[in-house]
Amino acid sequence: MAENIGTAARAMLNCGLTDLRLVSPRDGWPNEKADRAAVGALEMMPPVKVFDSTEAALADLHRVYATTARDRKMVKPILTPRAAALETLEAGRAGRKVGLLFGRERTGLEKDDIALADAVVTVPLNPDFTSLNLAQAVLLLGYEWYQAGDQTPPRVLESHGSPPATKDELYGFFAHFERALDECGFLRNEEARPNMIRNMRNMWARAELTEQEIRTLHGVVKELTTLREPKKSR
Amino acid sequence: MAENIGTAARAMLNCGLTDLRLVSPRDGWPNEKADRAAVGALEMMPPVKVFDSTEAALADLHRVYATTARDRKMVKPILTPRAAALETLEAGRAGRKVGLLFGRERTGLEKDDIALADAVVTVPLNPDFTSLNLAQAVLLLGYEWYQAGDQTPPRVLESHGSPPATKDELYGFFAHFERALDECGFLRNEEARPNMIRNMRNMWARAELTEQEIRTLHGVVKELTTLREPKKSR
Repeated sequence: MAENIGTAARAMLNCGLTDLRLVSPRDGWPNEKADRAAVGALEMMPPVKVFDSTEAALADLHRVYATTARDRKMVKPILTPRAAALETLEAGRAGRKVGLLFGRERTGLEKDDIALADAVVTVPLNPDFTSLNLAQAVLLLGYEWYQAGDQTPPRVLESHGSPPATKDELYGFFAHFERALDECGFLRNEEARPNMIRNMRNMWARAELTEQEIRTLHGVVKELTTLREPKKSR
Repeated sequence: MAENIGTAARAMLNCGLTDLRLVSPRDGWPNEKADRAAVGALEMMPPVKVFDSTEAALADLHRVYATTARDRKMVKPILTPRAAALETLEAGRAGRKVGLLFGRERTGLEKDDIALADAVVTVPLNPDFTSLNLAQAVLLLGYEWYQAGDQTPPRVLESHGSPPATKDELYGFFAHFERALDECGFLRNEEARPNMIRNMRNMWARAELTEQEIRTLHGVVKELTTLREPKKSR
């Protein structure tokens, strides 16, 4: 269906994939419904290539993965999308052309098509509810390919121009905060005091404070301690 | 929009996630359009919980990730879906409840909602075309969570009852095949012979042949060599 081709194209471009090949598209090509479903993706991609046979569509490729949801009783390696993505990335770096082969939305790939591929990719998902539409399958395979080559750090604290506090700034706040707690009597239990201080230092340390936040916290402690005494001006 | 809730529920159940919570759904709840879009997923899940505020929806959770596509200029850890999935799996194993917070289809989460979360999750995708719909974002986050706990081997050769050939069976085929090549003269160059044999053995070894396939290949070699001589019966 043209709509499925459009949403699949959109999912491809989300993942930086732009070489879309169609085998005997039912609704003809080019197709307005596909354009609408692609929300601009098809216009940003090189022209789609249309073929009469799966063999012709795959002819210039060096490696092909067939995507299937169900077991087709064929003797073939079955890979996870992640494993296939790593292989694909390596093959690409070696100058080889790799294709991902998807079947019709409802029926999937036929056995004769699968037999043209090097390996099968099946997405591990909830076995009690596996109904993925075509675009979602394209998105998951494309997503893994993009991640295989992506350098985004797993975790980063983005501080938007306010640099992280130096330890000197952090310890300066510890001193201010703990002096205030001493003065108000919160740390009056001498035996518990060292452990309470360590626990609170650990809590502040976990927050990964910025310079600006340290300044804000100094202000907070100052105002809170001022409030405990009647203001001079009253 | 009710349809987006339905398709998001479907993506959740694909990944084995079933605790769906809504904050002030625009189209009311329960909702027929959502049911239709969920293609059965909502009926397989426990009842959806509806809340008046984000705070109330998150109240019993121990850790919350806010999903955003754009940078919101907040000082907050930004995780990849994979890193968040690993943390979520660990937290779940420690008996903690983790939530993934998604915003409206068009506008995403508001800053006040993001400020209620421990960290932000952003999906690394093609920066020139990042338009993911809500269900696709849910699918990618859920997919990573499912993979984090999934034991599917990265690559497996499924042989469907026909066991892999033993080395004895493989070497038996090598002997038959090479005898046939000797007889037809293919290996007549004595100098090249050892290397040609090794190359072809490597090729057969890469194919990871099954017992049944070895039997088939014996038959193929037998028939091919028989064809080279005029059949007795003629």
